[in-house]
Amino acid sequence: MPGLSDAQRAVVERAARVTRERIAPRAARYDREAVNPRESWRDLWETGFLAMAVPTEYGGLGLDMPTYVEVLRTIAQGCASTAMTVHMHSTVMRFIDALATGDQKRRYYAEVTDRGTLFGSWGSEPALSLSRTMLMETAIRHHERGWIIDGQKHFCTMTDGAGYYLVWAALDGMTDMGKALLLSLVPAEATGIQTDGRWDTLGMRATYSPSVTFRGCVVERDSVLGDVGDAVKVGVIEGFALGYAGIYLGIAQTALDFAIDYAKKRVFKPDPLPIAYEPTMQRHIGELTAQLDAAALVLADSAARWAAADPTGRGTLAARAKYVTTEAGLHVTSKVIQLVGGRGAYREYPVERAFRDLRTCTLMVPSVDRMLEALGKNALGIETAILNVPGLSPRPD
Amino acid sequence: MPGLSDAQRAVVERAARVTRERIAPRAARYDREAVNPRESWRDLWETGFLAMAVPTEYGGLGLDMPTYVEVLRTIAQGCASTAMTVHMHSTVMRFIDALATGDQKRRYYAEVTDRGTLFGSWGSEPALSLSRTMLMETAIRHHERGWIIDGQKHFCTMTDGAGYYLVWAALDGMTDMGKALLLSLVPAEATGIQTDGRWDTLGMRATYSPSVTFRGCVVERDSVLGDVGDAVKVGVIEGFALGYAGIYLGIAQTALDFAIDYAKKRVFKPDPLPIAYEPTMQRHIGELTAQLDAAALVLADSAARWAAADPTGRGTLAARAKYVTTEAGLHVTSKVIQLVGGRGAYREYPVERAFRDLRTCTLMVPSVDRMLEALGKNALGIETAILNVPGLSPRPD
Amino acid sequence: MPGLSDAQRAVVERAARVTRERIAPRAARYDREAVNPRESWRDLWETGFLAMAVPTEYGGLGLDMPTYVEVLRTIAQGCASTAMTVHMHSTVMRFIDALATGDQKRRYYAEVTDRGTLFGSWGSEPALSLSRTMLMETAIRHHERGWIIDGQKHFCTMTDGAGYYLVWAALDGMTDMGKALLLSLVPAEATGIQTDGRWDTLGMRATYSPSVTFRGCVVERDSVLGDVGDAVKVGVIEGFALGYAGIYLGIAQTALDFAIDYAKKRVFKPDPLPIAYEPTMQRHIGELTAQLDAAALVLADSAARWAAADPTGRGTLAARAKYVTTEAGLHVTSKVIQLVGGRGAYREYPVERAFRDLRTCTLMVPSVDRMLEALGKNALGIETAILNVPGLSPRPD
Amino acid sequence: MPGLSDAQRAVVERAARVTRERIAPRAARYDREAVNPRESWRDLWETGFLAMAVPTEYGGLGLDMPTYVEVLRTIAQGCASTAMTVHMHSTVMRFIDALATGDQKRRYYAEVTDRGTLFGSWGSEPALSLSRTMLMETAIRHHERGWIIDGQKHFCTMTDGAGYYLVWAALDGMTDMGKALLLSLVPAEATGIQTDGRWDTLGMRATYSPSVTFRGCVVERDSVLGDVGDAVKVGVIEGFALGYAGIYLGIAQTALDFAIDYAKKRVFKPDPLPIAYEPTMQRHIGELTAQLDAAALVLADSAARWAAADPTGRGTLAARAKYVTTEAGLHVTSKVIQLVGGRGAYREYPVERAFRDLRTCTLMVPSVDRMLEALGKNALGIETAILNVPGLSPRPD
Repeated sequence: MPGLSDAQRAVVERAARVTRERIAPRAARYDREAVNPRESWRDLWETGFLAMAVPTEYGGLGLDMPTYVEVLRTIAQGCASTAMTVHMHSTVMRFIDALATGDQKRRYYAEVTDRGTLFGSWGSEPALSLSRTMLMETAIRHHERGWIIDGQKHFCTMTDGAGYYLVWAALDGMTDMGKALLLSLVPAEATGIQTDGRWDTLGMRATYSPSVTFRGCVVERDSVLGDVGDAVKVGVIEGFALGYAGIYLGIAQTALDFAIDYAKKRVFKPDPLPIAYEPTMQRHIGELTAQLDAAALVLADSAARWAAADPTGRGTLAARAKYVTTEAGLHVTSKVIQLVGGRGAYREYPVERAFRDLRTCTLMVPSVDRMLEALGKNALGIETAILNVPGLSPRPD
Repeated sequence: MPGLSDAQRAVVERAARVTRERIAPRAARYDREAVNPRESWRDLWETGFLAMAVPTEYGGLGLDMPTYVEVLRTIAQGCASTAMTVHMHSTVMRFIDALATGDQKRRYYAEVTDRGTLFGSWGSEPALSLSRTMLMETAIRHHERGWIIDGQKHFCTMTDGAGYYLVWAALDGMTDMGKALLLSLVPAEATGIQTDGRWDTLGMRATYSPSVTFRGCVVERDSVLGDVGDAVKVGVIEGFALGYAGIYLGIAQTALDFAIDYAKKRVFKPDPLPIAYEPTMQRHIGELTAQLDAAALVLADSAARWAAADPTGRGTLAARAKYVTTEAGLHVTSKVIQLVGGRGAYREYPVERAFRDLRTCTLMVPSVDRMLEALGKNALGIETAILNVPGLSPRPD
Repeated sequence: MPGLSDAQRAVVERAARVTRERIAPRAARYDREAVNPRESWRDLWETGFLAMAVPTEYGGLGLDMPTYVEVLRTIAQGCASTAMTVHMHSTVMRFIDALATGDQKRRYYAEVTDRGTLFGSWGSEPALSLSRTMLMETAIRHHERGWIIDGQKHFCTMTDGAGYYLVWAALDGMTDMGKALLLSLVPAEATGIQTDGRWDTLGMRATYSPSVTFRGCVVERDSVLGDVGDAVKVGVIEGFALGYAGIYLGIAQTALDFAIDYAKKRVFKPDPLPIAYEPTMQRHIGELTAQLDAAALVLADSAARWAAADPTGRGTLAARAKYVTTEAGLHVTSKVIQLVGGRGAYREYPVERAFRDLRTCTLMVPSVDRMLEALGKNALGIETAILNVPGLSPRPD
Repeated sequence: MPGLSDAQRAVVERAARVTRERIAPRAARYDREAVNPRESWRDLWETGFLAMAVPTEYGGLGLDMPTYVEVLRTIAQGCASTAMTVHMHSTVMRFIDALATGDQKRRYYAEVTDRGTLFGSWGSEPALSLSRTMLMETAIRHHERGWIIDGQKHFCTMTDGAGYYLVWAALDGMTDMGKALLLSLVPAEATGIQTDGRWDTLGMRATYSPSVTFRGCVVERDSVLGDVGDAVKVGVIEGFALGYAGIYLGIAQTALDFAIDYAKKRVFKPDPLPIAYEPTMQRHIGELTAQLDAAALVLADSAARWAAADPTGRGTLAARAKYVTTEAGLHVTSKVIQLVGGRGAYREYPVERAFRDLRTCTLMVPSVDRMLEALGKNALGIETAILNVPGLSPRPD
């Protein structure tokens, strides 16, 4: 935890305790059953972490970004799906902070602090690639009772467990997102929402993220956050990727820790010493440690610069952190299985789940190619946004 | 299939047909249930491939190595566990060819050709790393009714489906393998064999390879193949790794083919063309294609040189092929998921299974470090064997 | 030399002898002085290799592609610049074979066989990137005495030593290369050619390739080869890249051979054995050997398929070979210096020159990105040419 | 310059100015002529940087480690050899600080502050690999007039320009370094020193580091620093590697800056925009930027932890920084040439020198394998020192 104060560390330590004692032990079961980690969410609610991105004046922890990503990393060490769902939820909290009215804040934040309600965020769509072009085909229109939503969403995280979903849609189905993008908070029990319930994946199974169809789904007037186009202007959407980076790091750390522990204990006959004493094993562990270390420093640096950065700067900081942790995470989780050998593939150990989770969660927007483009543009002095929003960020390519 | 004759290609084409029509469709179920691919074995028996390493004079196909690895690669494109189990079985056939008496050959080969019996090979043990030192703690001793075996084996492939197991043991529990290593064929129904039945792994799940304990397991006199130490002198054990290489290639090819097909069909709005037309996608596909292509050429070259090589030479050829296909396979199966994106993690598509299977089956002996050592020694003119057998291959390091 | 017949091997052996005895010993001096390897060219003329791409009916060796790339590889093991210049020259020979009239062939081939004349090929231009777009700003126009050429060329290999230069120009300065690209053979002594004489580079110094300006350079009517656009239609231009691959391989092989030899001899106190006996050194050497081996097999396979391939197929074969040998070559030449340590940087040993030459000559068209695009398009079933010629190969991207 | 205070930044800015205005312009000439950068040393003396590791009480800048490595990085951006020689010199200053008597400090520091004298450090020997075993064959013995030194040293940096050389030798030629290792400061004009004067290398040419033979070289009693074995116990020797890391980073930064500048200006017809606008170029630049950024953060973090770390901890910090910057530096300097293309190999641009210097200076002790071992041991909880000193750091492997 480079650069954190004692107070910040204390928060992270609390997260570490609840992760170790309550969240980690359930991770294998949630993974196997592919259901949302409801008990773990409850533990995080009870310990305050469900409100870690809720401002203190509304009863939350109001964590700054450096502490927040450390907490995410810590939870991910125990259960990546719990960390991911809580991160999606917390980012919705940040959208509310940036876009909502006082009334909305009071109402939605109380849902979290008082009732432990989870908030999902649904952006992906079947015919679109947000990493390529930030478009929404799901349409939101004015309706006599408020708003009406039609369309289809993919990868709808927490379909089975959240109380509200932040739905990304285009006003009147327009394609100029600068004039159309609108966020609304849809209650889980709203009519006109239907899921195919299909979610059987390599990893991140406990995020439970099937497809959802909206057919004439009506929500009340007050469900909408801010004005059209606001969602991509307030420096919140960039935070998705920064949080992912923390999660990748946590997953990879768990895998590496297992390998280190294994190497310290494992003896192969006729050698008298554990394999930790083999120079080859040392070099492999050394390489992985150095790579994860570097990634952790990049993440910490990005988080430390967050508060002072504008949306474009945040996009660059997030892209850098997500890119570096993606590469490190993919390498570490695969290599650790190699170092452990056959037992590394056993489901009773956490490394194979780390391997599956890491490969899966690094698929989230923005893609590696898109992140590298954003980093390159920044270095080349070309104005850029991490997402290519039609009508907002002119790109010459 | 570089360098194969028309006749050889015809054999491979036959394997491709049975794979496509009968083996591939069952692969997902076998993977899910983690059971041996019994119906697929039956199909391979009916089409002759269960006897592909049985000499023609005993009713088998007697495939040469280039054709054999191509057949393995082809089967692995449909179901890696089927290919792996049949490869273990076929390698036992080669041990029989190299070590058995005429009577033994007639008897065991008939089991295969006439009854479709599978033969497993159990070498791994819990306290040993064969990649480091080729030792066996499992002991075989003379017994009034033949031989008696005691010890524990790990990763006992086909525990649930084979008729015989080739058990690797040390005569009287000695540690000098050159004077002690002895192979025996143990019938599945022998008494004194007990499995823990635990097999829940990342991939290669249908190999069903739990641990097995031998306690006073008695087998008849004629169960033993050859003399002590023979097993590592006849140029057969090296063939394990060569076959693995074919399997890795097949798995990776399936993943890449899926990505290519996906890229040709997938359109993201507002782009009018499939993503196959994006230069970035082309470069990714180009890189993976070049790497797999190179690996395929290495494997083909190694197989072509096989017949003329001595055991040391075969060890080098196998190490080269296994190393190159391991690196290519790990890279391709991980990258393909990245290219396909979120859908790449869906269990309904074959790429996530390829990713799990490849990472798992590349853990088999010899390890990457051991292969590189063998290749380096060969290049440096230092006499070497691919396995470090106490009493046989003096190593100065 | 995988796949070569005894006769082909004999040719390569002859090249190896002249390389070892006469060409290699001069390489360091040519590199230092950055002058064309005139004595080495003379040796290659005397041994017939200056005419290795000249058809036998005109007195040349008429080597097939597999033998040709092996000879290039062999010469490059001794002197990369000699191999590169002779390859440029030989490719001009192939253009003459494909495009020239009988009279032209007799005349130009005799220059080579009878007088040892070298032919350069000048395509690059300061404002263009042939890897991106195959354009020529240098203009060729009809003139009362034949043709008149105006423009500027970069990287004009052999400016100091060739007798003729194949100049790539556009008829009447048009930009549609399909209707304008025209090759002419300009004698070195023609008036209106002026070089800046500046050539001081990292590597490939003995190619001596400064800039050249044409100002009203008049050549006779018979200097032009074929019709407009022909140059990119006859499957010759693709051969540049294939030959480069052979050269990269030769350079890398020299570096690796040095490291192997060094490791076998080098003893560090207090260890009694040479470092070749260290497992770590073995693994490094093993890795490099495997990578070069794979690259050599790709090159051999590409060369073996050459004769039967159409221009598009040749482009793919060449791209594959150049890409794989580029990656292997860059890795091997850098890593070898690391393995040798401080002495690896000494100019008295050949590895630092290999490092410089490899990095330099892999910059030649097409670029890595362009090759990967070509390979990807091929795998994706998209019609492609290795070079993007305006008016010839429509690309949707 | 992450984490530096305003005062520290001001020092670095001063170094940047003298580098930009006086040191960088001479770098190409020093490289070509392979002579010590005497004028640049003089400029650094005049601006105080020759005494940057001399304590303030002796008239030096007394820079802390974070500022020091930043200054080295900055100088290396202009001239790697100047940075390297000044770093060797400064590390001798630190040995004096840790080991010398008050009299010695006054005397030697005054040489630097008052006369601008350079101090070299000679450790390497022809028959030894310090990265493998920290042994010295050069012997130092008591002599009536002080001490007498016999032996041979390799890579004797600044042979041509320093006033004193810190010579690493073993008392009475013993091999137990814990009881024998002794440092002495030998004046350049001492008799019995002879150099072969041979120094013609790939890069780092202006360090001028030929071999030197000591034959009965007598130095006065007061020339010895501290007691036997002290040299490896005081946490100074570890600083060599940390400073190297700063130099690698500076070299790589210069290469990347050139590529960025080039991409912003370079236009290829018929494209109207510079290549900085190509997504492919952006991704390449993005990748290199992210990698260098991560390396810079690792270096900064290692330097920040330096003061509080014990020698073992410093060894780990230095190994981590040197390893990460080595990998980043090798990748960046090679890739930048590829991005720039043919012109990247021109000697008139700084990138080809960066490529040569980086490959050369990363060969310095400890080797990559040794660093990874040290990092792995640290992660595995095995007590380690970055150098393997016989008699001091028992290693079980």
